[in-house]
Amino acid sequence: MGWGDLGAFGEPSKETPNLDQMASEGMLFLDFYTANPLCSPSRAALLTGRLPIRNGFYTTNAHARNAYTPQNIVGGIPDSELLLPELLKKAGYTNKIIGKWHLGHRPQFHPLKHGFDEWFGSPNCHFGPYDNKATPNIPVYRDWEMVGRYYEDFHIDLKTGEANLTQIYLQEALDFISRQQASQQPFFLYWAIDATHAPVYASKHFLGTSQRGLYGDAVREIDDSVGKILKHLQKLNISENTFVFFTSDNGAALISAPRQGGSNGRFLCGKQTTFEGGMREPAIAWWPGHIPAGKVSQQLGNVMDLFTTSLSLAGLQPPSDRQIDGIDLLPAILQGQLIDRPIFYYRGNEMMAVRVGLYKAHYWTWSNSWEEYSKGIDFCPGQNVSGVTTHTKEEHTTLPLLFHLGRDPGEKYPISFASAEYQGAMERISNVVQQHRVTMVPGEPQLNVCDKAVMNWSPPGCEKLGKCLKPPESEPQKCIWSH
Amino acid sequence: MGWGDLGAFGEPSKETPNLDQMASEGMLFLDFYTANPLCSPSRAALLTGRLPIRNGFYTTNAHARNAYTPQNIVGGIPDSELLLPELLKKAGYTNKIIGKWHLGHRPQFHPLKHGFDEWFGSPNCHFGPYDNKATPNIPVYRDWEMVGRYYEDFHIDLKTGEANLTQIYLQEALDFISRQQASQQPFFLYWAIDATHAPVYASKHFLGTSQRGLYGDAVREIDDSVGKILKHLQKLNISENTFVFFTSDNGAALISAPRQGGSNGRFLCGKQTTFEGGMREPAIAWWPGHIPAGKVSQQLGNVMDLFTTSLSLAGLQPPSDRQIDGIDLLPAILQGQLIDRPIFYYRGNEMMAVRVGLYKAHYWTWSNSWEEYSKGIDFCPGQNVSGVTTHTKEEHTTLPLLFHLGRDPGEKYPISFASAEYQGAMERISNVVQQHRVTMVPGEPQLNVCDKAVMNWSPPGCEKLGKCLKPPESEPQKCIWSH
Repeated sequence: MGWGDLGAFGEPSKETPNLDQMASEGMLFLDFYTANPLCSPSRAALLTGRLPIRNGFYTTNAHARNAYTPQNIVGGIPDSELLLPELLKKAGYTNKIIGKWHLGHRPQFHPLKHGFDEWFGSPNCHFGPYDNKATPNIPVYRDWEMVGRYYEDFHIDLKTGEANLTQIYLQEALDFISRQQASQQPFFLYWAIDATHAPVYASKHFLGTSQRGLYGDAVREIDDSVGKILKHLQKLNISENTFVFFTSDNGAALISAPRQGGSNGRFLCGKQTTFEGGMREPAIAWWPGHIPAGKVSQQLGNVMDLFTTSLSLAGLQPPSDRQIDGIDLLPAILQGQLIDRPIFYYRGNEMMAVRVGLYKAHYWTWSNSWEEYSKGIDFCPGQNVSGVTTHTKEEHTTLPLLFHLGRDPGEKYPISFASAEYQGAMERISNVVQQHRVTMVPGEPQLNVCDKAVMNWSPPGCEKLGKCLKPPESEPQKCIWSH
Repeated sequence: MGWGDLGAFGEPSKETPNLDQMASEGMLFLDFYTANPLCSPSRAALLTGRLPIRNGFYTTNAHARNAYTPQNIVGGIPDSELLLPELLKKAGYTNKIIGKWHLGHRPQFHPLKHGFDEWFGSPNCHFGPYDNKATPNIPVYRDWEMVGRYYEDFHIDLKTGEANLTQIYLQEALDFISRQQASQQPFFLYWAIDATHAPVYASKHFLGTSQRGLYGDAVREIDDSVGKILKHLQKLNISENTFVFFTSDNGAALISAPRQGGSNGRFLCGKQTTFEGGMREPAIAWWPGHIPAGKVSQQLGNVMDLFTTSLSLAGLQPPSDRQIDGIDLLPAILQGQLIDRPIFYYRGNEMMAVRVGLYKAHYWTWSNSWEEYSKGIDFCPGQNVSGVTTHTKEEHTTLPLLFHLGRDPGEKYPISFASAEYQGAMERISNVVQQHRVTMVPGEPQLNVCDKAVMNWSPPGCEKLGKCLKPPESEPQKCIWSH
């Protein structure tokens, strides 16, 4: 989902009454970012509070390439990483993940080995259907064991776009919340549904209801579901004890537009890129009785802050033995403070850009290769900013391209290198970057090796269902990441 | 001002608290249009309820060219046109225009000859400063006579961007409203300020206060002024008897961005074009006690509707002796009805596009000429949709380019000519267009002839001020309209 997909963020069909109301009852963040313009690294960053370059969710197979956890990925979240649910456990929290895990699907990466107490969902994206010969269909887990596979036991009709997944995930959430409320246990629910990811789907009730087509149907279903979760908290009388945060893991995938892709508002390009469209996210914090209603924050935020902020809410300190990139947003959320902090825009192993205040400096620019672009793969459809949305990887490290995101949120007008404004802003930014680089110790890259043998052939529980498949011979190879 | 310039419409700095509050207390229109992507024709349409092609505010000097009323224009609003204030007079209204008139500056076009009782403002844009030799500075009128000239008696500092004009126009509005309330007279106030038009200005109090630069300062001053006007109505206890509508006369002028130009959100291109960015406008209706608070309307609206709606509010019928294009929006505003009606997108003498429901068909596409574009004049900076934002005037009358504005508000993905969707939508649209063409009787074009002799050399009242200038010999010529 992209920054521009909610009514509260200016989507011209304004079809998200529940999320808009959540914003009007809570705090809307205008300058909230993901840690990476792609799913897996973004989610790893959220749960570790650390940039993907630190927690290993990146590749060194090629320079500045996006990577994630497809079925044949060998790596996953290292045991050495401390995940939010692991830490929350110490404060008595019960932790559940519903939906897409995406931090590795081999046994050692199972979410219940990394702090979660419950899981209902899948380890990978709902791509498919596959033939179960060259490639197995993606399993759906309940806790330790698979309970079926996408396209087999969990239907997704690619022709009509119909699937009940969001409804199933919603019911899981409501049930979990009810149980936790009944047991008076504090809980952490990571509701990581995979709608609106392509292939886009919605349940029958929502199909054809949006002006925006199938993608809009999916957004409407998410909106409706969030509304039901919030109402459930209120009905159970625990809304004033429950902090809720809504955001997305990357910008809208414009390559799937218009039928399957969303909107990044007026921002440049989309998912896969380090332009604003790829990394600025819709974000809403909700906590009745604590967050004053209808506030708007210009605090620079990041999904990694949800790690530190959640710990703070639970009365816990973040780990002191490692670099944590997330900051505690509570002073911004509860007292309206503005905390000075930079935003780093990474693509794989490269820091492409950095934001300090309203200035954003691009040290590298790249949309995708000419080779890909000529095949019709376009991360910036209809947009073309000369020298900015480049199809060759352009280095600007000695003279970064500088934009003022206040008067030029669309990154269209680089500030003149000769101007006093450029000199002043870059001096400040250079210091921030230098400090960042000095303390940067990259983690072991987890997204370098692929092997068809590690696919979801025989997940635990497959025997009971008669759904075990025979894996091929192991043939580890460098993964190919094309952009 | 463009669709995307208000916080309520997703401007990412969200700096318009007063207009956003106006929307939350009233009705926000998401699909509201101007009648022309340029100032004079748009304003003529608003005050006559008729398309510029009917009321004469267009040119036939060249095909599909934008035209307006610069200082050397010979034409203006014809006496045969019935303006909103002329009609409101019959219901006892006192009518005032504050700000830019723009319907012709020769004596016969004076606003007090066309129904207004009072005027404070200028006949033309605040371009300048001029030398008063080749070109006179623009006069500012109080009622029948000029009281000074821009850049001489009304300062605009182009270097700092400082000018008090919006404050002066605000005070005029507050004074007029107070007087009307005291005299218990119904009134029509046309607050037609010329901020945010380039050269952009703001008063000292607002300079440097916006994240968005000088343009944002101007928006903030307008926002603050609207807030003061609404509060004034409330203080005087007449807010429940006063219908207020906020909109703009064309999309943001992207050629002036980023320092002097605004935002059309995610819409394509800007002012001068018939893409959504040129003609879809921010629009808010406010009438406490009558319009339910916080409503959002998807009624297709047009500035021309303000003519018919205002008459309806005053208990008057629109003229029956001529074609009126504006519709009465009250059923949409007060009862939430959705009235089926098309939107026509004209550029000069050509119908470029038409919207019916969520479909928009382009019969002609053009941004501007290669000749202009190569000089750096760009109405679509950073945007380029192949075959759509064309720099040659492209005719599509036999096979219009069709877009679905729900799933593709950015006009990036033309619907396949071969699809059933195309066939179905075009059948409906063709009927609408045919009916429109059959009943179209173009008015006498007013914007064809230019003459330096008709400039504001010696406006009435110049003698008292010693500001009369000697006009040159009359040399009527065809006006040159380059886009």
